[in-house]
Amino acid sequence: MVFGTNAVHELLRRGERVERLYLAHGPREGELSRLAAARGVAVEHVERGVLDRLARSPSHQGAVAVAPPFRYQPLEHLLGPERTSVLVLDGVQDPRNLGAILRTAEAAGATGVLLPRRRSVHVTAAVTKAAAGAVEHLPIALVPGIPATLERARRAGVWAVGLDERGPDDLFSLDLATEPVVLVLGAEGRGLSRLSRERCDVLVRIPMLGRLSSLNVATAAGLAAYEVARRRRGSTTEGV
Amino acid sequence: MVFGTNAVHELLRRGERVERLYLAHGPREGELSRLAAARGVAVEHVERGVLDRLARSPSHQGAVAVAPPFRYQPLEHLLGPERTSVLVLDGVQDPRNLGAILRTAEAAGATGVLLPRRRSVHVTAAVTKAAAGAVEHLPIALVPGIPATLERARRAGVWAVGLDERGPDDLFSLDLATEPVVLVLGAEGRGLSRLSRERCDVLVRIPMLGRLSSLNVATAAGLAAYEVARRRRGSTTEGV
Repeated sequence: MVFGTNAVHELLRRGERVERLYLAHGPREGELSRLAAARGVAVEHVERGVLDRLARSPSHQGAVAVAPPFRYQPLEHLLGPERTSVLVLDGVQDPRNLGAILRTAEAAGATGVLLPRRRSVHVTAAVTKAAAGAVEHLPIALVPGIPATLERARRAGVWAVGLDERGPDDLFSLDLATEPVVLVLGAEGRGLSRLSRERCDVLVRIPMLGRLSSLNVATAAGLAAYEVARRRRGSTTEGV
Repeated sequence: MVFGTNAVHELLRRGERVERLYLAHGPREGELSRLAAARGVAVEHVERGVLDRLARSPSHQGAVAVAPPFRYQPLEHLLGPERTSVLVLDGVQDPRNLGAILRTAEAAGATGVLLPRRRSVHVTAAVTKAAAGAVEHLPIALVPGIPATLERARRAGVWAVGLDERGPDDLFSLDLATEPVVLVLGAEGRGLSRLSRERCDVLVRIPMLGRLSSLNVATAAGLAAYEVARRRRGSTTEGV
C-alpha cells in the first residue's frame, strides 16, 4: 500500500507495478487518473472514508495505490561506486523521520541508504509517503548489523563517518567529504551505539550555535548528505 | 501544556514558570523530578493514561508540564541586530515541521522565527514538544502579513532571501549569506505565495541532485539556516 499524491505519482511515473489505484475527489485526482490510465493501471474512484481505512491513516491526500512489497537492494550495489555516499541509519524508529531522510538523501544525490534488519523502522506505507517518491529511485539495503557492515565498507575502500554530538571534528570541515563515504547516524534520542561509534573512522559533530545539544536525526542527515554533495560539486566543477 | 522529556527539561532548566509537573514512570522521571524540586515546582506522579488525556496525545514520553501560554516577541526585537538571520515561514501547517524548524533554527544560531497570524500553525503543545526545548530560547513573532513584513525588513536594512525550487541562484553560492537576512520559506506542498516571492530580493534554490523536485520544508529550512551559519563562521574566524 502506497499513499500520498507525490508518492503515488512517482510510482506511476516510473512505471512501477501497481495493482490498483484508489482515488478520492481532490486537486490531483485528474492528473493521477490520466497517468494511471496511460500505464494501464485500474483506477477506482471512492469516498475519502474508504481511503482512510485502506491507508489506516487520514493522511493519504486522496490517493492510495496497491503495490507489491518494497524490494531492497543487495549491499554490494551500494558500496560499489567510486563516488559512494551512503547514509547508514543505526536504529531510526520514526516512519516520518525515515521518510524525510530518504527524500533528502535522494535529493542530495546520495548513492543509497542502509538500515539494520532489527530495531529499525523499515520501508512501510507511512515511510513511503513521507519519502514523497524517493523510495522509487534510491537503493535501500537491509543489513544484519551496522558494525559488521562498517567493517565491510572499510574493506571496500569506503570511509565511515559517524555523526556524534561529542565528535572531535566539525562536519563543515570534514576532509573526507570528497572520498567514498558512509555517513552513520544514530537513533532518535540515544544517538550512535557504542559499537557503531567505535567502527567509524572519524566522528563529526554538527556545530550547535544556540543552547540546545542536538538536532532531529532527519535534519542532521540532511545537513550531512548535503555537505558531501556541496563539497563534491565544489571539487569538480564550479557553479553546477 | 508542554510535553515531552526534552521540552519539559528545557522549561525547568531555564527556570520558566511551571505551575505543575505530571510525571509517569520512565527513564528520566528521577532527573526531571529532582530538577522540578530544585525549582520549587509541584510534581505529581501519575499513570501514563492520565498523561495521555492531559497531553491529548500518547507521545508525551512520561512528562507533561502545565505552563502559562507562550509569549511571542514584538517584530522589532527580531529585525534589530546587525547579524540578523531570521526564518520567515509563509504558511507552514504541520506542527512537527514547525517544531523541527524551531529546533534547527535555534541550533544554527538564527536570531528568530516569524510566523503569519493566519493560515499557519502557531506554537502549540505539539510544536513545543517537536522543538525539543527551542521555544524556550528562540524569539518568535507573529506578524499580520508576510509581504508587508518583508517590506519592513528591507527598510531596516535586512535582505529577504526566498527559497524557491525555481530560484535562479544556488543556496550554496549565496552572496548575501554574510549580510543581515530573513530566509523566507513557503508552505508544505505549494511553496512561497506569489506576493511573498515578489517581495524577496533574491530567490535561491537548493540543488536537487536526484530525480525529486522538492525537499521537506523543515529540511530546506535547516539547510538554509546552517548555510548562513557556516558562511558567517567562515567569514569571521576559521575553525570555530
